[in-house]
Amino acid sequence: MISPAKLQVDVLVIGGGPAGMSAALTGKERHPEKSFLLIRREEQAVTCCSIPHFLPRGRDLGKSLIPDHSLSRAGIELLITEVMAIERAEKYCRLANGKHVHYEKLVLALGSTPAIPPVLGSLPAGGSRLVHPEPLSSLEGKVFAVPKDAGYLERLKESLAQRSRIGILGGSLVGVEVAWELSQTGSQVTLVEALPSLLQFVYDEDLGSYVEEVLEKGGVKVKTGSRVNELASRGDGVAILLQEKETLLADAAIIALGYRPASDLAVKAGLEVDRSGFLITDEYGRTSDPDIFAVGDCVQKRDFLSGRLVPVMLSSVAAREGRLAGWNLYRLVLPRRLAGTIPFALLALGEVGLGAVGWTERRAGEEGMDAVSAAFEGTDRHPPALPGAMRQWVKLIAAPEGGALLGAEVSGGLRIGELVNLLGVAIQGRMTAYDLINLQLGSHPQLSPSPGVIPLVKAAEMLVRKIERPRFFIL
Amino acid sequence: MISPAKLQVDVLVIGGGPAGMSAALTGKERHPEKSFLLIRREEQAVTCCSIPHFLPRGRDLGKSLIPDHSLSRAGIELLITEVMAIERAEKYCRLANGKHVHYEKLVLALGSTPAIPPVLGSLPAGGSRLVHPEPLSSLEGKVFAVPKDAGYLERLKESLAQRSRIGILGGSLVGVEVAWELSQTGSQVTLVEALPSLLQFVYDEDLGSYVEEVLEKGGVKVKTGSRVNELASRGDGVAILLQEKETLLADAAIIALGYRPASDLAVKAGLEVDRSGFLITDEYGRTSDPDIFAVGDCVQKRDFLSGRLVPVMLSSVAAREGRLAGWNLYRLVLPRRLAGTIPFALLALGEVGLGAVGWTERRAGEEGMDAVSAAFEGTDRHPPALPGAMRQWVKLIAAPEGGALLGAEVSGGLRIGELVNLLGVAIQGRMTAYDLINLQLGSHPQLSPSPGVIPLVKAAEMLVRKIERPRFFIL
Repeated sequence: MISPAKLQVDVLVIGGGPAGMSAALTGKERHPEKSFLLIRREEQAVTCCSIPHFLPRGRDLGKSLIPDHSLSRAGIELLITEVMAIERAEKYCRLANGKHVHYEKLVLALGSTPAIPPVLGSLPAGGSRLVHPEPLSSLEGKVFAVPKDAGYLERLKESLAQRSRIGILGGSLVGVEVAWELSQTGSQVTLVEALPSLLQFVYDEDLGSYVEEVLEKGGVKVKTGSRVNELASRGDGVAILLQEKETLLADAAIIALGYRPASDLAVKAGLEVDRSGFLITDEYGRTSDPDIFAVGDCVQKRDFLSGRLVPVMLSSVAAREGRLAGWNLYRLVLPRRLAGTIPFALLALGEVGLGAVGWTERRAGEEGMDAVSAAFEGTDRHPPALPGAMRQWVKLIAAPEGGALLGAEVSGGLRIGELVNLLGVAIQGRMTAYDLINLQLGSHPQLSPSPGVIPLVKAAEMLVRKIERPRFFIL
Repeated sequence: MISPAKLQVDVLVIGGGPAGMSAALTGKERHPEKSFLLIRREEQAVTCCSIPHFLPRGRDLGKSLIPDHSLSRAGIELLITEVMAIERAEKYCRLANGKHVHYEKLVLALGSTPAIPPVLGSLPAGGSRLVHPEPLSSLEGKVFAVPKDAGYLERLKESLAQRSRIGILGGSLVGVEVAWELSQTGSQVTLVEALPSLLQFVYDEDLGSYVEEVLEKGGVKVKTGSRVNELASRGDGVAILLQEKETLLADAAIIALGYRPASDLAVKAGLEVDRSGFLITDEYGRTSDPDIFAVGDCVQKRDFLSGRLVPVMLSSVAAREGRLAGWNLYRLVLPRRLAGTIPFALLALGEVGLGAVGWTERRAGEEGMDAVSAAFEGTDRHPPALPGAMRQWVKLIAAPEGGALLGAEVSGGLRIGELVNLLGVAIQGRMTAYDLINLQLGSHPQLSPSPGVIPLVKAAEMLVRKIERPRFFIL
């Protein structure tokens, strides 16, 4: 551990999530002569995306903890404490115990915290419980959020183990996965979403309604188009009052309405943030202070195609930003290939995997583009009679002129992750639908679709027919 | 079926494998006004790569048959017969029954046939058995090849079911998979390979020796560096005499020494072939006769990076060539993105999947390049404690200057197929090791590696360190 006499480091990283970890590890690897210190608040770091899987009773949340030995092995020091303030002029941070840590470069990987409507309460920094406003203090212990905090989650898990009817507010990726996992382990789950279909921000209607179908087959009651007006205590449980005057009774409620940037520390230090509280940085993570980087969920993202602001918060994006910051901490050495951020949305419900990358059709429409799309369904092994073969559905979204690939949606088994990433590589390689028809791909019965019926190639062929036909001059 | 009066078609395709099927289907889709006829010799077409899986007793070879309904649904006529000659001047083909089929465009998808050393015998066109030369006629029914012929394979399967000690000559992809599948279903299998390690043409030493290890754990006896001098009949079985004077006794032997192009029909018609008998075409499949295309295993391949001849025979390559020919049958409309052929080598041994794409290090060396390489091993899900997580090993091969990605090798579980294809897309997108570090990828516990420890990104980071360091000027 760091000694009191040594409270001067070259690089100070605040935050132990994917962004902070990868900034520290990559930074130290690229700059082995510099001293690195990582400070985080949580006793133990958690693999945030695996929370839904480990939340139900009978599963070991301990398996989702990120071990600290990768830091010590790399020669990075670790301190568990809270940073109270950043003194930019003198370049030091003030810790909870009053001590100062001086830095040469500072990396803020402050992460995000559950977005909770103020009427329901708030989760104070480092808070072990959701604090409800006065009239709702009777909800104590019955309404929860899903912060990335192993201690809080352990308590949530214990509480859920004793309750069977669970109401989940918000059909976000986290809400959907928590609903699925709890329903698979014996809970009666109702998922409430205000929008007309689930996951509208990441999937088009086709995939969103497929998710709904899978959830309902799995025993989850899905209520879309239902806005929650109020929560109220009812005996041992909680009443969820919907706008349409309906009331759901549950033993506990989980708020899964997304996350907001945990940028308070940076705001207090006078660093530039946008209206939503995201830190403003350049493509390498440099904030308005040239010696302070910010990476991950606390940072503003711009869309890779339009440059518009997008509220993307993903561990993969965070890890990549940390990596790029690590490379470029002192001098820019690794140019960024593609400006902006490509959204990914991966989901696993039992043996069903779903994913999207880039723009959906809806998003294209919102951006002002009449994108063309085509979908094809086949199998992920061949012949389809091979044991373990799963359906594989691929939808491609492309620009109406020239056919530049803008996005893709996929559903199938648990092997779709690399396929979504393959389509992401194609987008980043600036490929068009024509290039996809042209692709050389490998094939094996147990490892791929049939070479003659590759869903992504068939979808591209169908897409091209739409691009070729003049869409406005048909008589 | 085609009527005798209609023996004039616009497009005639000879061959019912992946190349012929995809040429016919894509061609008809792009040229719906043209009439298409596909002629093949085999009563039923078979998914050739799945032969090893369905060969052992207890498995249903019928499941590997390609149904013909995709042809009839597309409006393509099918005729089961043999084409005896191509009369190029008058543009017709002569069939086994003496009838003529006139064509406007002809597509030769003649495929390949097992390469059998002449001293051991030959497999005549449409032959239902391996014909041994006179002194070896006693091997009849004990020595087999692996042709892509459902009838032959059914008889081979029946014969194998009654024999337990099987010798396999040739550590090719087919030899290795047949050895594995037979050993997993109760046979005592010995695999004999003349070269010092298995699969040298497709994998580097690291992956080759891993395959050997997996095979031996699975009960296959592997003899590398062993050249077969002779086969001889011994009682009910066969003696495999090795160069080093050792003799292996088996109940049956299978020759898996690769395949040769089945181009005899084209040679007789005076079409241009190379010394190995491969048809010479341009990048769109056009032979020396402007109205005759050739696609698939019977066609010469050139390496995608060096342009040198390579003996690649893969169903994925065949299907793609068929597809491109189908698009460009009458006029070139879809330009080919990348000249030459990228080799892929995918292999599944039980729950272990392996694959390579592009150049191996050995191949780079043979081409005259001192490629740099780096490998990283992680897991394909995260945290690694997640049920079903498998190791994922990725090796990247890049050019020593600039770091252009030349090839990759992968091993892991049965989800590596799409990862190998992802790396193939990166090569085709002309990406460098730096671009791979820069990649935006999605992440999910059940669908991908950890965002901070993605083997392909870690390998790229290691690779870049080798590229950066001046390799010749170190004091």
